[in-house]
Amino acid sequence: MNPPPTISLPQGVRDILPEEAGKIESVASGLLSVFRKHGFGRVITPLLEYVDVLSLGVGENLKKRVLKFIDPSTGRVVAIRPDITPQIARVVATRMRDYELPLKLCYNENVIRYEDLRGGKSREVLQVGAEYISRESSPEADAEMICMAVEALKAIGLERFKIDIGDVGFLKTILEGLRIEDGERERIKGAIAVKDSSGLEAVLEGLGEKVSGEEKKTLLDLTTLYGEEEVLKSATAFSRDEKTARVLENLEGVCGIISGRGFGGYVTIDLGEIRGFDYYTGMIFEGFAAGLGKPILSGGRYDTLVEKYGHRLAATGFAFDVENIVEAMEK
Amino acid sequence: MNPPPTISLPQGVRDILPEEAGKIESVASGLLSVFRKHGFGRVITPLLEYVDVLSLGVGENLKKRVLKFIDPSTGRVVAIRPDITPQIARVVATRMRDYELPLKLCYNENVIRYEDLRGGKSREVLQVGAEYISRESSPEADAEMICMAVEALKAIGLERFKIDIGDVGFLKTILEGLRIEDGERERIKGAIAVKDSSGLEAVLEGLGEKVSGEEKKTLLDLTTLYGEEEVLKSATAFSRDEKTARVLENLEGVCGIISGRGFGGYVTIDLGEIRGFDYYTGMIFEGFAAGLGKPILSGGRYDTLVEKYGHRLAATGFAFDVENIVEAMEK
Repeated sequence: MNPPPTISLPQGVRDILPEEAGKIESVASGLLSVFRKHGFGRVITPLLEYVDVLSLGVGENLKKRVLKFIDPSTGRVVAIRPDITPQIARVVATRMRDYELPLKLCYNENVIRYEDLRGGKSREVLQVGAEYISRESSPEADAEMICMAVEALKAIGLERFKIDIGDVGFLKTILEGLRIEDGERERIKGAIAVKDSSGLEAVLEGLGEKVSGEEKKTLLDLTTLYGEEEVLKSATAFSRDEKTARVLENLEGVCGIISGRGFGGYVTIDLGEIRGFDYYTGMIFEGFAAGLGKPILSGGRYDTLVEKYGHRLAATGFAFDVENIVEAMEK
Repeated sequence: MNPPPTISLPQGVRDILPEEAGKIESVASGLLSVFRKHGFGRVITPLLEYVDVLSLGVGENLKKRVLKFIDPSTGRVVAIRPDITPQIARVVATRMRDYELPLKLCYNENVIRYEDLRGGKSREVLQVGAEYISRESSPEADAEMICMAVEALKAIGLERFKIDIGDVGFLKTILEGLRIEDGERERIKGAIAVKDSSGLEAVLEGLGEKVSGEEKKTLLDLTTLYGEEEVLKSATAFSRDEKTARVLENLEGVCGIISGRGFGGYVTIDLGEIRGFDYYTGMIFEGFAAGLGKPILSGGRYDTLVEKYGHRLAATGFAFDVENIVEAMEK
C-alpha cells in the first residue's frame, strides 16, 4: 500500500476562505455592474482551448505560458485558457460577425498562466474584463475603456491608484532603427523599462560607434519619458519619423479625452515601457494601486488579433486582477 | 509549413454568447442571493487538485471521471476539478477547523467532469452550490437544504419542478442481503432505477432459486416505491431490518419538515434510486424541471467525506446546474 498523499495543492492555485472570497465576490460584482451600465454584455468562454487555435492569435511564444496537456479523445494539445482576450477575438470572428458594431463584451473568468516567458510560476488568476470591438481604431474607444476602468475602481471604493499609459509602437520603432544585434536591443529595452539611466549609459558605452551620439541621447531621454501629460510634448521633440509622431498624436488624443472627463489625475504616461501580450498593436496601459507592487489591471489595443481568426476588426480592452484589487483595498 | 488548424473547441466545452450568458449570470446571482439570505458564505476553490488528494475523499472510481494530466513541476497527476464538494470537505477539514458550527458555505464555479464511469463525454459545468457542515447529522439540516433549493428556484421564477428524494442506504441494504453475484446485483439495480418491472421480473426469473419468492416480491415492489410521501408508509411494510427502518424514519422526518414549510408539493420520494457520487452516505436528491430530461440540481448527505481529510464532521449539500436551469426556463 502506498503511504497516504500529503494534502497539498498543485503549484499556482489556492483555497480562498469566506472572508476573502466574500470581498472578491463583491469587488467582481461592483466592477461588472459599471461595465453593464456602459452597455457591456457578458460572454462566457470555455475553460479549455486547443493550443494551435490559441496560437493562431497569440503566436508561438504563448506555448511557454500555458498549462497544457494531450486531449485523450483527439490527441491534440489542449491548454487551460491563459487569457480571455484571444478567446473573445475567436468568438467574435467566428460566431458574432452579424452583431452590430461596436461590440461591447465583458467577462468574469478564471485563467491559469505562467507569469513570464522563461517558464516561471503559474498562477490561477480571477479576471473581470471588458473588450470594445469596432470597425476602426480610434482614440475615443481607448479613452472610453480607460475612463470606464477608472470609474469602476472608484465605484468599488478604490481611490489611490494610477493608470500608466504607453504604446507598444513607440520604443519598438526607435529600437528597430538602430543597427545593433537583438541581444543588445533587449539589454537597452530592459534598462529603459526600469528607468535605469546609468545602466543604460553603460550598455550604450559598450556598443561604441554602433550607436551615434544623437541616438544615445534619444535613448537616455527615453528613461525620463515618464510622468504627466507634458511628457508627450517633450517626446515630440525627438520623434523624427512619421510612425512615432502618429503614436504621440494618438496618445495626446486619448489623454485629452480622459482629462476632459475629469480623470486626468488618474493617468500617467510611460513611453519607455513595452509590456503585456504580443498581440497588442498600439496603446497599452496598466493600473497600479498605492502600496501594491503588482498591477491591478492591464490592457491595450489589439487591432490584428480578431483578424487572425478570420474577420478584420479593431479592438481594445483590459482585465482587472480581482485578487490584487482586494489586496490593494486592504492596505 | 503545417496547414492552419481548424478553429474548433476541445470536446466538452463551448462558447456562451451574450444572450445566454446574461441569463446564466442573472440566474446564478439570483440563486446566490437566496443562499446569502440564509447565511451561506462564499468560498472560492482552486481549479486544479492533485488526483491522489481528490481520491482520498472520493475513491479510486473518480479517476475515470476526471480530466487529468501530469504536473510538469512535480510529476504528480493533476486533475481539473470535477466537483466542488470534495474540495470544500478538504478546505473545511484542513483550514476551517476553528470556525463555528454549523458552517454554511456556497460557491459559483466551473468544473469539468465525465458524465459516467464508463468514460463517456466530458462537460464543463457551471455550478452554484451550497454545503451545510455540522457536528452531527440531522433531518432538519437535510430539510433546510431542500427547502432552500426550492426557495432559490422559485426566487428566479422557476415554478414547474420536482425534487426527487431517496436514500443511498435503502436499496443498497436490500441488495446486499441477497446471496447473488455482483453482476446480477447490478442488473437488478439497473431495472429498479428505471422502474422497469417486467425487465426486473425477467432478471429475477433467470436467478431461479437463488432469490426466494418473498425477496422477489420485495424487489418488484421497489419499482413502485415512487411518488408522494405515502410511499414511505408502504415501504415500512416490508422493511424488515433496523437499517432500512432508520432510513425511512429519517426520510419521514425530512419530508415532514418540508411539508410543514409548505413545500411538500415540490418533492417526490424515489426509494428505487441510487444516484450521484460515491461519497453520499444517506439521503440523496435530484431536481427536475418540467420538459427537461436532465437534472437541474443534485445533492445529498455525505457524513464521511470531511473525515477522510482528517476531521470528523457531518455534512449535506447540493449544486445547481446553471445552464440546465436556464434551458428549463426557456421551455
